Amino acid sequence: MARRRQILDRAIEVFRERGTDGTSLRRIAEAIGVSHAALRHYFDSLEQLLVAVYAHAEAARDDDPDLPEPSSAVDVMVQAAVQNLEVPGLVQLYSTLVAASLEARSTEAKDYFTSRFAHLRVALEARVRAEQEAGELRSDVDPAQIAALLVAASDGLQIQWLLEPDIDLEGTLSAFRTLLRP
Amino acid sequence: MARRRQILDRAIEVFRERGTDGTSLRRIAEAIGVSHAALRHYFDSLEQLLVAVYAHAEAARDDDPDLPEPSSAVDVMVQAAVQNLEVPGLVQLYSTLVAASLEARSTEAKDYFTSRFAHLRVALEARVRAEQEAGELRSDVDPAQIAALLVAASDGLQIQWLLEPDIDLEGTLSAFRTLLRP
Repeated sequence: MARRRQILDRAIEVFRERGTDGTSLRRIAEAIGVSHAALRHYFDSLEQLLVAVYAHAEAARDDDPDLPEPSSAVDVMVQAAVQNLEVPGLVQLYSTLVAASLEARSTEAKDYFTSRFAHLRVALEARVRAEQEAGELRSDVDPAQIAALLVAASDGLQIQWLLEPDIDLEGTLSAFRTLLRP
Repeated sequence: MARRRQILDRAIEVFRERGTDGTSLRRIAEAIGVSHAALRHYFDSLEQLLVAVYAHAEAARDDDPDLPEPSSAVDVMVQAAVQNLEVPGLVQLYSTLVAASLEARSTEAKDYFTSRFAHLRVALEARVRAEQEAGELRSDVDPAQIAALLVAASDGLQIQWLLEPDIDLEGTLSAFRTLLRP
């Protein structure tokens, strides 16, 4: 597994430099300096490798010991979105994989993102409900809907920010604090 | 221009059936029954064709005479999102193009979506501000931020819905009506 991890670490660097545009397992193998056969030993397809790279980068982001523990559902999303922008190539890779997951022929990306969105919504819904019960958030909105909206707004705004960096990503997402105030 | 329009109408059908996965100008020319040279006469690249197909489909959606005029900023976004789901392939094409627009080498998609997001935000911001001044929306939130959030939430939620059709897209986006109430 150490070898697989090295490949993922190096692959992230390659995506930072080149994006996923017109890439292939063969080209990635060349860029990270392993044989095509070695890469195929760990990953059956380009889609599988890209999903593994994304999952690895997201886990690294969430494991950062320097980050404060988010104190609310809105914090979770704002903090993750702000950190994503500091990893060059991550939002591009995310967008590429989400688009791939919607294609009829997709398997790995479709499974990964279907499950990722479901887990994110469930975790945020539980936080929103707990904050509502504690009187910290307004309780006239459905916590499941708020969870889905937080995830959606964060995803959509990261893309807008990449195309228009003048957008205040953190401030705009933080408007949810006002909107959700009791 | 009639010929260009015919090509776009037919290309939308092709995307509905096959998605954009692994496609090329040559394959699209075959599928819609024109020569590759004829297609190249109208479109310099696959990206340019895909952007034109998307813009054509979005314009057709907004020109539908059967639809009521949206009466608020939230209505504009809810109505567009709900209609998008009725055009098979449209959200997939949108996601593919947005991902393409983030690639370093992109030109047509980057220009198109940068300008599209900017126009959408400006138009919605003006509506939100007018509704705030009319006392129809809460005025303690920045109208530009609300406009960006509405666009972002709508984009993100359409993707979640494609992966999980049990999500109540219309109801979830409509939660903004409650959140923005004065």
